[in-house]
Amino acid sequence: MDILGWIAVASIFAAGLCMGIGAIGPALGEGRALAQALSALAQQPDEANTITRTLFVGMAMVESTGIYCFVVTMILLFANPFWNHFIKLAAEK
Amino acid sequence: MDILGWIAVASIFAAGLCMGIGAIGPALGEGRALAQALSALAQQPDEANTITRTLFVGMAMVESTGIYCFVVTMILLFANPFWNHFIKLAAEK
Amino acid sequence: MDILGWIAVASIFAAGLCMGIGAIGPALGEGRALAQALSALAQQPDEANTITRTLFVGMAMVESTGIYCFVVTMILLFANPFWNHFIKLAAEK
Amino acid sequence: MDILGWIAVASIFAAGLCMGIGAIGPALGEGRALAQALSALAQQPDEANTITRTLFVGMAMVESTGIYCFVVTMILLFANPFWNHFIKLAAEK
Amino acid sequence: MDILGWIAVASIFAAGLCMGIGAIGPALGEGRALAQALSALAQQPDEANTITRTLFVGMAMVESTGIYCFVVTMILLFANPFWNHFIKLAAEK
Amino acid sequence: MDILGWIAVASIFAAGLCMGIGAIGPALGEGRALAQALSALAQQPDEANTITRTLFVGMAMVESTGIYCFVVTMILLFANPFWNHFIKLAAEK
Amino acid sequence: MDILGWIAVASIFAAGLCMGIGAIGPALGEGRALAQALSALAQQPDEANTITRTLFVGMAMVESTGIYCFVVTMILLFANPFWNHFIKLAAEK
Amino acid sequence: MDILGWIAVASIFAAGLCMGIGAIGPALGEGRALAQALSALAQQPDEANTITRTLFVGMAMVESTGIYCFVVTMILLFANPFWNHFIKLAAEK
Amino acid sequence: MDILGWIAVASIFAAGLCMGIGAIGPALGEGRALAQALSALAQQPDEANTITRTLFVGMAMVESTGIYCFVVTMILLFANPFWNHFIKLAAEK
Amino acid sequence: MDILGWIAVASIFAAGLCMGIGAIGPALGEGRALAQALSALAQQPDEANTITRTLFVGMAMVESTGIYCFVVTMILLFANPFWNHFIKLAAEK
Amino acid sequence: MDILGWIAVASIFAAGLCMGIGAIGPALGEGRALAQALSALAQQPDEANTITRTLFVGMAMVESTGIYCFVVTMILLFANPFWNHFIKLAAEK
Amino acid sequence: MDILGWIAVASIFAAGLCMGIGAIGPALGEGRALAQALSALAQQPDEANTITRTLFVGMAMVESTGIYCFVVTMILLFANPFWNHFIKLAAEK
Amino acid sequence: MDILGWIAVASIFAAGLCMGIGAIGPALGEGRALAQALSALAQQPDEANTITRTLFVGMAMVESTGIYCFVVTMILLFANPFWNHFIKLAAEK
Amino acid sequence: MDILGWIAVASIFAAGLCMGIGAIGPALGEGRALAQALSALAQQPDEANTITRTLFVGMAMVESTGIYCFVVTMILLFANPFWNHFIKLAAEK
Repeated sequence: MDILGWIAVASIFAAGLCMGIGAIGPALGEGRALAQALSALAQQPDEANTITRTLFVGMAMVESTGIYCFVVTMILLFANPFWNHFIKLAAEK
Repeated sequence: MDILGWIAVASIFAAGLCMGIGAIGPALGEGRALAQALSALAQQPDEANTITRTLFVGMAMVESTGIYCFVVTMILLFANPFWNHFIKLAAEK
Repeated sequence: MDILGWIAVASIFAAGLCMGIGAIGPALGEGRALAQALSALAQQPDEANTITRTLFVGMAMVESTGIYCFVVTMILLFANPFWNHFIKLAAEK
Repeated sequence: MDILGWIAVASIFAAGLCMGIGAIGPALGEGRALAQALSALAQQPDEANTITRTLFVGMAMVESTGIYCFVVTMILLFANPFWNHFIKLAAEK
Repeated sequence: MDILGWIAVASIFAAGLCMGIGAIGPALGEGRALAQALSALAQQPDEANTITRTLFVGMAMVESTGIYCFVVTMILLFANPFWNHFIKLAAEK
Repeated sequence: MDILGWIAVASIFAAGLCMGIGAIGPALGEGRALAQALSALAQQPDEANTITRTLFVGMAMVESTGIYCFVVTMILLFANPFWNHFIKLAAEK
Repeated sequence: MDILGWIAVASIFAAGLCMGIGAIGPALGEGRALAQALSALAQQPDEANTITRTLFVGMAMVESTGIYCFVVTMILLFANPFWNHFIKLAAEK
Repeated sequence: MDILGWIAVASIFAAGLCMGIGAIGPALGEGRALAQALSALAQQPDEANTITRTLFVGMAMVESTGIYCFVVTMILLFANPFWNHFIKLAAEK
Repeated sequence: MDILGWIAVASIFAAGLCMGIGAIGPALGEGRALAQALSALAQQPDEANTITRTLFVGMAMVESTGIYCFVVTMILLFANPFWNHFIKLAAEK
Repeated sequence: MDILGWIAVASIFAAGLCMGIGAIGPALGEGRALAQALSALAQQPDEANTITRTLFVGMAMVESTGIYCFVVTMILLFANPFWNHFIKLAAEK
Repeated sequence: MDILGWIAVASIFAAGLCMGIGAIGPALGEGRALAQALSALAQQPDEANTITRTLFVGMAMVESTGIYCFVVTMILLFANPFWNHFIKLAAEK
Repeated sequence: MDILGWIAVASIFAAGLCMGIGAIGPALGEGRALAQALSALAQQPDEANTITRTLFVGMAMVESTGIYCFVVTMILLFANPFWNHFIKLAAEK
Repeated sequence: MDILGWIAVASIFAAGLCMGIGAIGPALGEGRALAQALSALAQQPDEANTITRTLFVGMAMVESTGIYCFVVTMILLFANPFWNHFIKLAAEK
Repeated sequence: MDILGWIAVASIFAAGLCMGIGAIGPALGEGRALAQALSALAQQPDEANTITRTLFVGMAMVESTGIYCFVVTMILLFANPFWNHFIKLAAEK
């Protein structure tokens, strides 16, 4: 197997693991915040606006770490700088 | 085994692990939020509308990390850029 | 062992692990939500309708991550794109 | 060892692990829900009907992830598409 | 070692692991439910009938995942389809 | 080492692991139930009969998963179908 | 190393692991039950007889899983059926 | 495979693991803070300004460890000093 | 290295692991029971006799699993049946 | 692969793991402190100044362990003394 | 490396692991008991004598599992029966 | 690869792991102390001076274990005695 | 590498692991006891003498398991019986 | 690679792991004690002297296990008896 093949295999594995492991944290963190938000809503319904606004802005921030993982996965699959280098090299040959 | 075979094997394993591990976080997070929502409903039935609306919008957001995993799995299986490259290469030969 | 054999072995392992690991999260999440629902029912029997409706809609959503795993498992076993490619190749030969 | 042997060994291992790991989640989830149901029954005996009905419908839903695992195990053992392919191939020879 | 030997070794290991790991979940889940049942009995002795009936029906359901594991173990040991195939093959020879 | 040796080694390891791991769940589950039973006895001494009866019937049920493990271990050691097959084969030779 | 050596090594390892791992569960389970018993005694000294009787009968039941492990360990060391088979074989030669 | 290939493979794996593992901590930490913030809002609505301001400044600080991981991942992929060294070396040749 | 050497190495490792792992459970279990006993003593000093008697009888029972491990370790080191077999064999030669 | 290549590969892996693992602790620790700070603010709004000052000074101290990891990662990537030694050696040749 | 060397290496590793792992349980168990003892002293200072006496007798019992580990470690290092056997053998030669 | 290369690779890995793992403990410990300090401030604002002084002296002490790790990492990278020995040896040659 | 080298390498690794792992238990156990002691002091300042005396005697006992580890580590490094044996052997030659 | 090289590599790895793992326990234990001390200060400000004195004496004792690890690490790096033996041997040659 040549060098392009090894880079493809490594990228596929790294992409799968990065997204798989990286989804655990944000999902648990957001689930916890959401659970507390509903509890807070039941306790103080008059503050529903402030609570839901803070919740969704905060969840977007928690989501950001999940999105970093997604971005890294996409880069590994579709904009892999090492792959591009060797493809260009092969094209030049 | 040639290069296409290795990429196929790697994609199959990465797809299986990515979805398998990636399903743990969202399921636990959503389960926690849902549990708290039911507790909140029992405590403050008059706010049922606000609570269920916030719950389902929030769960959709938690679900998003699970969907990222599903998307990565589908890309690995059906739109794998490395596979496509080598298939095209093999077709050109 | 030829290339078809390796893909078969990889698909079998990935399918088993994906479903096995992927069943942990949804089952625990749903169990938690169900437990809280029963507690809420005992606390507020008059809201039984709202509670059970929210419960089953929510559990369907949690179940969705388990179903993603099942879908990926089924794709790996019965609609594996890599397998199909090599079967077609072998048939053409 | 020929290709059929490898597929048999892989299927046996994957079946054992899939069922073994996949039984942890549903059993713990159902156990938790059942425990809460009994606590709810003691707290609100008049709602016994609603509680037990919700319990068993919910447990069936939790059980579903365990059943997915069982189904995948049975498919791997008795309706393995890869095994069938190679058996047919061997029969044609 | 011929192919029958490998399948025997794989089946023995898979059977041992499947039952060993698969016994953890149901035992913990049932233990939890049983503990709560006794607590409920002490709290509401008049409902002893409903509580014990729900307990044993529920435990049977939790036990089911343990029984799936036992069934898979027995199939692997005594009704292994792959073993039977190769035994038949060897007998025909 | 011939085939009988490998099967013996595999059976010994599988038996040891199956019983070792399989003893964790039932012991913890029964310990938890027993602890709660004693707490319930102290709280409601008049219900001692119902509580201890439910406890021992329930513990027998939890014990069942431990007994499945013990049965599988005994089958692997003393009634191993694969071992018997090869012993018979060797005797026929 | 001949076949008897491998079986000896496997039996020694399996015996050590089976007893080592198998001692964790019962010890923790009994410790928990004992702790609760002492708490119950302090709370309801008049029921000391019922509590200690239930405690020791229950602990014997929890101990049973530890004893299964000890029995399997002893069988592996002193009544190992595979070892006996090969010893008899060697004696006949 | 030459030296550039090994560095590419190592960078891809390290990048995937660094981001995947590094996303767990910040997401859980921010989720916890957000949950408590919502609880605090419900308890003391008049302090909403101070609470949300402290929350977002604090979350930015927690996020910083996630961003360190992202920066390291980006450096590994796009500004890898070892890769640059060998590329320059190859260009000089 | 001959067969006696391998058995010695295996016995040493198995003895070390069996005692090392097997000490975790009893120590934690007894520590928990002892902690609760002291708490019970402070709560009900008049029952000091019953409490300490139950404590020490119970701890002896918990200790039993630790002693099983110690016994297995001693058997592996000083009364190892497999070692004795091969020593006798070597002496006969 | 020559010695420079091995050092590059080792540095890349060590940098990725050091930052990835090292981000877990500070993020969780800071998240916990931040959560408690918000709870304290809601409880004692008049002390907002002291609380936020203590919070940010303390978080900077917790962050310091994360920064140690970042520093080590940067040293490994950009000021690696072993790499510099061999580069100088190669330049002298 | 001859047989004495392997036994020395195995004994060193087994001794280190046995003591290292075996120190976790007793230390945690005793720490827990000690913590509760201090809490009990603060709650019931008049029973200081009974409490400290029970504490130290109990801690000696918990310590016993740690001492078993120490004894096994010392036996492995200074009274290793397998080592002695081969030393005697080497001396006789 | 010569001896200097192996020492460089080992030092790089050990440095990365030592700092990465060693940052978990201090960060969590300090985070916990800081959280409690803020809670104590809210509860007893008049003691702010004593509390913050004790907090920062204590955190410096917790930090010390993190600093030990940093020191060991720096020694491994910049004052490695084994590296220096072989460098001197190479210089003498 | 000769036999002395292997024993040195094994001793170094075993010493590092034994101390590293063995420090976890005592530190956590003592930290817990110390925390409870401070809580007890705040609750019952008049018993400060009894509490601190019991604390330090108890902590010395918990520390003992840490000291066992330190002793084993020192024996492995400076009084290693296996090392001494081979050194004497080498000196005699 | 000669014997000195292997000992250097082993010492570097053991030093890194010993300090890295050994820092977890003391840091968490001290953090817990410090947290409780601050809580005690807020509860009983008049006992500030006794509490802080006990805290720092106790933390020094907890720190001792961390210092054991540091000492072992320093011995492995700078006073390694095995290294010194072989250095002396090499010098004599």
